[in-house]
Amino acid sequence: MVEQLKCLDQQCELRVQLLQDLQDFFRKKAEIEVDYSRNLEKLAERKEHSILSPVNCWNLLLLQVKRESRDHATLSDLYLNNIIPRFAQISEDSGRLFKKSKEVGVQLQEDLMKVLNELYTVMKTYHMYNTDSMNAESKLKDAEKQEEKQMGRSDRQTPRSPDTLSSIKTDEKPVRRSSVKKIEKMKEKRQAKYTENKLKAIKARNEYLLALEATNSCVFKYYIHDLSDIIDCCDLGYHASLHRALRTYLSAEQNVETSKHSGMETLEGAAESLEANGDKQKLMETYNNVFCPPARFDFQSHMGDTGVVCAQQPLESELLQRCQQLQSRLSTLKIENEEVKKTMEATLSTIQDMVTVEDYDVSECFHHSNSMESVKSTFSESYLSKPSLAKRRANQQETEQFYFTKLKEFLEGRSLITKLEAKHDLIDKTMGESQKSDCCLASGRRNSALRKQESGEVIPLMVESCIRFISRHDGMSVI
Amino acid sequence: MVEQLKCLDQQCELRVQLLQDLQDFFRKKAEIEVDYSRNLEKLAERKEHSILSPVNCWNLLLLQVKRESRDHATLSDLYLNNIIPRFAQISEDSGRLFKKSKEVGVQLQEDLMKVLNELYTVMKTYHMYNTDSMNAESKLKDAEKQEEKQMGRSDRQTPRSPDTLSSIKTDEKPVRRSSVKKIEKMKEKRQAKYTENKLKAIKARNEYLLALEATNSCVFKYYIHDLSDIIDCCDLGYHASLHRALRTYLSAEQNVETSKHSGMETLEGAAESLEANGDKQKLMETYNNVFCPPARFDFQSHMGDTGVVCAQQPLESELLQRCQQLQSRLSTLKIENEEVKKTMEATLSTIQDMVTVEDYDVSECFHHSNSMESVKSTFSESYLSKPSLAKRRANQQETEQFYFTKLKEFLEGRSLITKLEAKHDLIDKTMGESQKSDCCLASGRRNSALRKQESGEVIPLMVESCIRFISRHDGMSVI
Repeated sequence: MVEQLKCLDQQCELRVQLLQDLQDFFRKKAEIEVDYSRNLEKLAERKEHSILSPVNCWNLLLLQVKRESRDHATLSDLYLNNIIPRFAQISEDSGRLFKKSKEVGVQLQEDLMKVLNELYTVMKTYHMYNTDSMNAESKLKDAEKQEEKQMGRSDRQTPRSPDTLSSIKTDEKPVRRSSVKKIEKMKEKRQAKYTENKLKAIKARNEYLLALEATNSCVFKYYIHDLSDIIDCCDLGYHASLHRALRTYLSAEQNVETSKHSGMETLEGAAESLEANGDKQKLMETYNNVFCPPARFDFQSHMGDTGVVCAQQPLESELLQRCQQLQSRLSTLKIENEEVKKTMEATLSTIQDMVTVEDYDVSECFHHSNSMESVKSTFSESYLSKPSLAKRRANQQETEQFYFTKLKEFLEGRSLITKLEAKHDLIDKTMGESQKSDCCLASGRRNSALRKQESGEVIPLMVESCIRFISRHDGMSVI
Repeated sequence: MVEQLKCLDQQCELRVQLLQDLQDFFRKKAEIEVDYSRNLEKLAERKEHSILSPVNCWNLLLLQVKRESRDHATLSDLYLNNIIPRFAQISEDSGRLFKKSKEVGVQLQEDLMKVLNELYTVMKTYHMYNTDSMNAESKLKDAEKQEEKQMGRSDRQTPRSPDTLSSIKTDEKPVRRSSVKKIEKMKEKRQAKYTENKLKAIKARNEYLLALEATNSCVFKYYIHDLSDIIDCCDLGYHASLHRALRTYLSAEQNVETSKHSGMETLEGAAESLEANGDKQKLMETYNNVFCPPARFDFQSHMGDTGVVCAQQPLESELLQRCQQLQSRLSTLKIENEEVKKTMEATLSTIQDMVTVEDYDVSECFHHSNSMESVKSTFSESYLSKPSLAKRRANQQETEQFYFTKLKEFLEGRSLITKLEAKHDLIDKTMGESQKSDCCLASGRRNSALRKQESGEVIPLMVESCIRFISRHDGMSVI
């Protein structure tokens, strides 16, 4: 029974130790979390302002780290000010309950000892009384033997049972009669003594048997019910309080997870919104003064001369021929440049396939978490050490180089086409209007007169289209 | 146009800076994660072996920290060996693309300058030729004026238009005729010169107008298409690669989350499995030698005496009376103890309500994560600083004290009941069997005879029930 209390003491010590370990654990984890939080906070300090989508991602990344920093600071705070105090209280409660339960146990053991002492006492009494009873019985037997001897001498034919004490006859010889009387008296006395002792012994045996039964029941009850009840008392609220403390930890971690998850979703949204065209628009709007087209170059008139192409003879046929030549040159150039463009676009498409390859799933690096084995060696090779990566990058740069070659070719072609097409279109347009504008090869005066006459019809065609672009002049337009 | 290239340079610098920042960010975060991982690893080192549910929770907690340690180590490794190299590559690619794009831009700007220089040249030519044409015209006009003067002197009635050069008459005076001829010749020469110059000027004007149209088209094309194309070239794959890098980060974080979540679920399961009764069973099984009931105490027979209660007269009536007294005492005790038990159980139920209060939701401490404000002050008070907590704990301890008072009362009562009931039941049983066992108040010899006769029937009833518990004797059973 001393072992039982020792065992409970040991359980109490283990429990206190466990709760101390839990407190130490959360104290250290609080330190780790607050360290982590502080480091993340430092990391989150910088933030830039820009409307471009990659900078938006960067800002959200910093915001996310700030959020994680705060969450881990909260975690640390919860460890220190909620979870650890809970364990401390459970430890305190446990200690108190163990002390009280032990007191109850000691009391029960003391009561049991009393019962056992009682049993010992009644057993001793029974043994004593039984000894007395047996002594009395043997003395009675001695008396009976003496009587029998006496009877055998005086009246051998009369056998007597030792317990028929009423058959004493008075008609025997006086000497023998006095001897017989003496023996009978002694036997009578011894019979009474024996009966008395026998009854006492039987009573003592009954008491012993009853005490034995009671003791066995009490021992049985102690082992089957009392010990269990004492352990229950030690456990009173322990598991429930421990459950609540762990639940608090889980709730804290769950909140960190939820918060992080929502931040990651925002970041994911920003990553999905990474968009080149939108950024280009924003850039051009921001640097409007640099990227806005300048005003169209005006016709720099000389001494009031009009800016109209003259297509009268002898220039008409020359212009017509030139127009046809431009036309034919342009159709060749356009066909050629369309080919270049197709190759360029196919190359671009190849590059786009290369840069959008879905190589970002790193799940395999985390498989060790399930097996719990050290697999440091496997997780670095996923991205960098693959020999295919270098090959892929070389291939990408080669494709890129080819793309730029084709792009330059295309842009050169487009420039030429733009230039020739503008000339062709102006000649073509002028030829269509040549009837009206016979403005050029007449004499100066008639020319002037015509200029005044048709100024409302011919000149504006050119001027107006120029004016359309005029908003601001920069240095280049005077060249 | 220089500004355009400067602007692209600036964008390139910003981009390289952003990518450098991202690399620095992930390098530092990798350090933070590996620090965090190492700290968690140290924390996870200890692990104990026990089958009790709280120790199971403790082991899972350590296992969880180990898992987190590994996950954060993996995270750190992924930052260093996957994410940072991606940003480095994007930076390298960006730099190369900007360089190539800038070359294309410079080429386009040079081509545009050529077009503008051409325009300047043809404009100057036009101005020069137009000046020549106007000079020729004014010289022609001078000649026409002289001719008119001459004509006015010789034939005033004949007005001539200056352009009808075919009306020279040969029947005039020789002096005047030679003078007229001279003037006419001069005029003819000047007319030819003017016509030639006028044609050249008109041609030059046409060239200037065509060049002007071509230039405006080229400038327009440059601003509307070329600049956009150059920016596209700078962006080639940038957003897609950035997207993949961020996706890698998100994938890594997602895996950490999933891993942590599954660990937390295991821990949650263990917290839900915290169970006092199971632990009690396990404890008692583990310390079987301490908690197993000892063998029943045997009847310690004296000199071969039998262990049977004797209920023959004159003991029968005494035992009967005793049995009735025990019966009545027991029913009173049982009623009283049942009352105590009810009070005790109600108190226990109150305590259980107290220790299972659901006070572990710490969500409110994390609300700051959404508002992103510093609310340090609010989150500590949730558990500890509530004045209700101290009150609650005091109340709990008071209830606990009351519970122990009632428990002691109940256990005392139960001990007494057990003792008395055992005695009562044995007497009661003996009374039922008293006809058979008239074993006690006969003489020693008849008693012995009876013992031998009935040994097969009466004694085993007691002995056998004793034997049932005998497996091992400890020190106590000899008392």
